[in-house]
Amino acid sequence: MELWYTEKQTPVFGITAKIRETLVTEKTEFQDLAMIDTEEFGRMLVLDGMVMTTVKDEFVYHEMVAHPALNTHPNPKHVLVVGGGDGGVIREVLKHPEVEKAVLVEIDGKVIEYSKKYLPEIAGELDNPRVEVLVNDGYMHIIESKNKYDVIMVDSTEPVGPAAPLFERGFYQGIYEALKEDGIFVAQTDNPWFKAELIQQVNKDVKEIFPIVHVYGANIPTYPSGLWTFTMGSKVHDPLQVDETAIPEMESNKYYTPRLHKAAFVLPKFVEDLCR
Amino acid sequence: MELWYTEKQTPVFGITAKIRETLVTEKTEFQDLAMIDTEEFGRMLVLDGMVMTTVKDEFVYHEMVAHPALNTHPNPKHVLVVGGGDGGVIREVLKHPEVEKAVLVEIDGKVIEYSKKYLPEIAGELDNPRVEVLVNDGYMHIIESKNKYDVIMVDSTEPVGPAAPLFERGFYQGIYEALKEDGIFVAQTDNPWFKAELIQQVNKDVKEIFPIVHVYGANIPTYPSGLWTFTMGSKVHDPLQVDETAIPEMESNKYYTPRLHKAAFVLPKFVEDLCR
Repeated sequence: MELWYTEKQTPVFGITAKIRETLVTEKTEFQDLAMIDTEEFGRMLVLDGMVMTTVKDEFVYHEMVAHPALNTHPNPKHVLVVGGGDGGVIREVLKHPEVEKAVLVEIDGKVIEYSKKYLPEIAGELDNPRVEVLVNDGYMHIIESKNKYDVIMVDSTEPVGPAAPLFERGFYQGIYEALKEDGIFVAQTDNPWFKAELIQQVNKDVKEIFPIVHVYGANIPTYPSGLWTFTMGSKVHDPLQVDETAIPEMESNKYYTPRLHKAAFVLPKFVEDLCR
Repeated sequence: MELWYTEKQTPVFGITAKIRETLVTEKTEFQDLAMIDTEEFGRMLVLDGMVMTTVKDEFVYHEMVAHPALNTHPNPKHVLVVGGGDGGVIREVLKHPEVEKAVLVEIDGKVIEYSKKYLPEIAGELDNPRVEVLVNDGYMHIIESKNKYDVIMVDSTEPVGPAAPLFERGFYQGIYEALKEDGIFVAQTDNPWFKAELIQQVNKDVKEIFPIVHVYGANIPTYPSGLWTFTMGSKVHDPLQVDETAIPEMESNKYYTPRLHKAAFVLPKFVEDLCR
């Protein structure tokens, strides 16, 4: 008997992956959670029927959330990750020695619990002493924080379910206020093939709040369309003005390189057009 | 009743697309051919169970085969396309007014016939007077051509079935000889997630023949992993030495821009590592 995980990434298109073993299926307080071991991508965390991360391709998303912003800010001491309970972004953030403290605010403690249990190569750094883990509402944490963080990373699910408020204009305003005077924020902003309007709306909203706004992309095979976008809003520092030759090469990286720092911001024309 | 097209891109992973209508399923002299109208990607040409092109995302592949090479060669008058019977690459080649003649050598006349019938927005330029269409073996055409073309583009299927010889070292040697003294060739070279060894082997083979070799990438949602690679071999002209500001902006493009010309060659680290 063959079991396959099939995800409708749109109502009429999807991916399908052969299952080795189903480790968890649970309805948490906030969402449907599954941990599946697939033959092609290894263990896979699925929330509300959407792949969040897999052992094989997780490095792309996690590196590309963390490094462009941290290599744009000249001295990122205090970093906040909203969501990201699998711990992958935190792992990448900690590669930067100048980060003194990384705070993770994940609304669903079960994501942390199962990631630590089944995805140790991703979640392993959540117990690092430089990390503070809060099981709490990221939106509320943002609203309550003022002039506090150098860099804020929004590692949310798609804008359905618990993450919906994280795509609202008011949330970006809160992020602006939670950042220090030269702070930077970055958020995952879905894909341009099936969610063009979302990218356009976020871009418009963020531009009304931050003086410097740029969108970049990365290839993630298990995410819809294989092309994921990230929107960066910055108060002072421009990612495209960075001296790439001064960015340190991280041997443990598998996707992000100093050479890719600016190239990732060069988008296909139809995506450029969404961000005008 | 719902009909879905499911393609195993690897033995244990694939895509699935809801079908609006199945227009053709036929065993040609060379391969299994299907023309399917899907809800998400529109009409889709499938050869030997692999998506070749779809109306929604075809522009990526066709622009990215044609424009990087044609904007690297200073005066590409004679262009050869091996394979590419759907006509999409030819359409892009003809956007360059300096191209006097574009020859298409497609082994399977049925691909041309059905593309003209069902994919007119892609195949429409095959009847252009600047185009010569040959229904013939591309390998043989290459072997018989000497010092003839400025640019050769290999728009083949994957290295199974009729396209297998197009991934052999001897074929690249033939291309070298079929090119003029400052000629350039480009070939699609599959994806780095599931076909890493292929990219590595092609890179090694082409480097033994051409002095300038570079690999670039593009996002194609219906191709395995969403990240496709292209390998360019050149005798004289280096794509990375081009003055991007001198490349004309083509209003009809949806993917390639002058800004993307060099950025497309900046690869994720794990892909860079395959091309050393």
